Amino acid sequence: MAQKPSIPKGTRDFLPIDVAKRNYLFSVLKKYFDRYAFQPIETPSFELNSTLMGKYGEEGDRLIFKILNSGEKVKKADLDALHTDDLKRFSNSLSEKSLRYDLTVPFARFVVQHQNELTFPFKRYQIQPVWRADRPQHGRYQEFYQCDADVVGNDSLWHEVDLVLLMNEVFQALGIHQITIHLNNRKILSGLAEWLGVEDRLIDLTIALDKLDKIGEEGVAAELLEKGFHPEVVDQVRPLFQLNSAPNEEKIEILEQRLKNSEVGTKGIAELKEVMRKVLNADSKVPLVVDITLARGLNYYTGAIFEVKPHGVKMGTIAAGGRYDDLTGLFGMKNMSGVGISFGADRIFDVMNALSLFPESVTQPSGVLLVNFGGKEADKSFEIVQKLREKGISAELYPDAAKLQKQLKYANDRGYRQVVLIGEQELTNGTAVLKDMESGEQKAFSWQELIESI
Amino acid sequence: MAQKPSIPKGTRDFLPIDVAKRNYLFSVLKKYFDRYAFQPIETPSFELNSTLMGKYGEEGDRLIFKILNSGEKVKKADLDALHTDDLKRFSNSLSEKSLRYDLTVPFARFVVQHQNELTFPFKRYQIQPVWRADRPQHGRYQEFYQCDADVVGNDSLWHEVDLVLLMNEVFQALGIHQITIHLNNRKILSGLAEWLGVEDRLIDLTIALDKLDKIGEEGVAAELLEKGFHPEVVDQVRPLFQLNSAPNEEKIEILEQRLKNSEVGTKGIAELKEVMRKVLNADSKVPLVVDITLARGLNYYTGAIFEVKPHGVKMGTIAAGGRYDDLTGLFGMKNMSGVGISFGADRIFDVMNALSLFPESVTQPSGVLLVNFGGKEADKSFEIVQKLREKGISAELYPDAAKLQKQLKYANDRGYRQVVLIGEQELTNGTAVLKDMESGEQKAFSWQELIESI
Repeated sequence: MAQKPSIPKGTRDFLPIDVAKRNYLFSVLKKYFDRYAFQPIETPSFELNSTLMGKYGEEGDRLIFKILNSGEKVKKADLDALHTDDLKRFSNSLSEKSLRYDLTVPFARFVVQHQNELTFPFKRYQIQPVWRADRPQHGRYQEFYQCDADVVGNDSLWHEVDLVLLMNEVFQALGIHQITIHLNNRKILSGLAEWLGVEDRLIDLTIALDKLDKIGEEGVAAELLEKGFHPEVVDQVRPLFQLNSAPNEEKIEILEQRLKNSEVGTKGIAELKEVMRKVLNADSKVPLVVDITLARGLNYYTGAIFEVKPHGVKMGTIAAGGRYDDLTGLFGMKNMSGVGISFGADRIFDVMNALSLFPESVTQPSGVLLVNFGGKEADKSFEIVQKLREKGISAELYPDAAKLQKQLKYANDRGYRQVVLIGEQELTNGTAVLKDMESGEQKAFSWQELIESI
Repeated sequence: MAQKPSIPKGTRDFLPIDVAKRNYLFSVLKKYFDRYAFQPIETPSFELNSTLMGKYGEEGDRLIFKILNSGEKVKKADLDALHTDDLKRFSNSLSEKSLRYDLTVPFARFVVQHQNELTFPFKRYQIQPVWRADRPQHGRYQEFYQCDADVVGNDSLWHEVDLVLLMNEVFQALGIHQITIHLNNRKILSGLAEWLGVEDRLIDLTIALDKLDKIGEEGVAAELLEKGFHPEVVDQVRPLFQLNSAPNEEKIEILEQRLKNSEVGTKGIAELKEVMRKVLNADSKVPLVVDITLARGLNYYTGAIFEVKPHGVKMGTIAAGGRYDDLTGLFGMKNMSGVGISFGADRIFDVMNALSLFPESVTQPSGVLLVNFGGKEADKSFEIVQKLREKGISAELYPDAAKLQKQLKYANDRGYRQVVLIGEQELTNGTAVLKDMESGEQKAFSWQELIESI
């Protein structure tokens, strides 16, 4: 019967301190989502395969966890598919639903399904786990939380302004002060492609540009050449790289000049400027960086593109998002422009741990142990426990009249900084001893004083 | 591409109002779990099949959602098993992990796996969803939350006392005042079986007794006869039924008399009395009911058994629990006595809805809409929005300078009770109009006054 227990690779148990930290992180996110008038929704952990499959590309489809049909239904296994090595079809014959892969597609499904119950523009946030059958390596987890805020049903730039300010406020509140918020616009990228005369190669161009951070200027140039871009085009692109270290105003000026003949490019610059003006008008200290190499899943975004990077710690993007124009179209509902952001909870968690940003109230929870001396002393101690709990304090009576040393060790292991002792003498006197676990200092109180002083 | 979207049967979407209500319920539970010094943990949504399978009986095994192996691994499908109609073996050949079925077995696995990192007695709470492949009918969901609190590693009755008081406080705090907390003890049931001379039929006896609520006295008698109990035994049992409406003291007295020759029965009565004494000593108003027909999954519990029932509303048990002695034994760790309770979140949610117990602060969230008149008026309104958000108030600017009627309709649909208007004239005057959406009353304020008065 006995077996050495473990958990699936790529999953995690959360001990109390980890749960406390993560709940703190979520509570800060919720606080600001609420302030910015986003409303919470939740969707089921699994969706029908028809909802999820085909929405994330072939690689995505492979990483979706399918749920095996129950009971008799497994008899429908498509053995032909198995014998012809069509494993996808074989798997599909055994499954009707899957664990959610992200929060975006379920959100689109939700909006279409509940369109008559919702008020548009609909501003929702959602903090729920997602599951991916990624190889459990490089700190990738098979189960992790996404924290998304989106607005659908409206294309006003005020939403972009809200989302940038929201991201900035969240990171300031978490103590992650050293960040930059990178901004771009898909229309600017389209304009650049026009200017270079490679409109038809927009995706290849931007995939290469997006790698500037990782592979450097020469790397990008090499990739462009390799992809068959003309050396003249590559030479024309090069100055854009240096542009990235210039002040925002300068970048915009150069872009305006370069893209003055591109209608889409000019529109993109106007949008970017309007968002920046409104954001800086609300808070001039928001660390905006115009970043014309920022692309992020270009197929998806149609307007603004955002990305937040922390500094002073080795970590990639910790929040990102942008505007998309036809998400609900996947489910037959057209013309629902949307814009959203997603916070990377696991990465933010790691940054906060690395920089010791979790407040002491989270990492050092308060609480009091009442030592158990048995009999009437224990009864009286439990009376005090109940009075402390009524005050909202976390309190407990040690469950047995064990040796004092054992009880104090428990208090220490639990991280309690205060212990109360009511022995025979204290019971007679109507007093209690309050012991500070750090200094070892002991002080006697009347019961009433004790309750008031903790 | 277009498809009518839906979700798997037995699952639910949660709209903002539902999320707000459920979060309120969880926040009350957490508050009291914290006060009673329980610590939160979380475990992965899926566990290895070796952890879960065989722990819930055959019916339970069938209701576990298995996750289909990914990629090449499905080639290991055991076709012999399929051909011989051994669907269980066939399914097992396609799956290595499953969604958690409850929080108890994962908790046992967690305790054994992390035993060197934990402080014993270990008091944990856990609020997470579980999944069961139940037929989606009779309001049964395939995904629902469990909210459990357990102590392992100690057999002191003080934990039973804590848990009974905790359950009572939670329901009082939620406004579910009309409840009874039913108490029994497995040892009393064993004693009764001894007294009846049917020690070897303890499980059949208690399964029948447990149904008294549902099938009545004659139903239980009939079931006992049908199961082959001697008519004399059944006659001997009958008086126990009437006992259930007697005062607790009387029941205990009669039990003490009947079970005076049973060592285990006498011990059970002593435990029950001790728990009751301590609970009533702490709070004489706790509505305890000695209930000797209460059994609840007898195979599991070894000492105290609890159950909470609401009154004035048609609903079964809303919380339950008891002491178990060898949960971690499943994973090779012996002698870890434990005691725990589980709150039925969905049922409690339904009771609170039925009795309108959710506070207005939850069902009628506060928030302010600033009407958008475009241009400089919109910029000024957004300035006020940001000032309100800084104060912790949920606020938003309508995203477009749409017709006033449309904007007010949005405010109404969102449930905002206050709307702020800054038009051309107000901008010039340095004022703003605050409109009460319920009364329709409008009042002008200076900008500073406005921010202070909301």
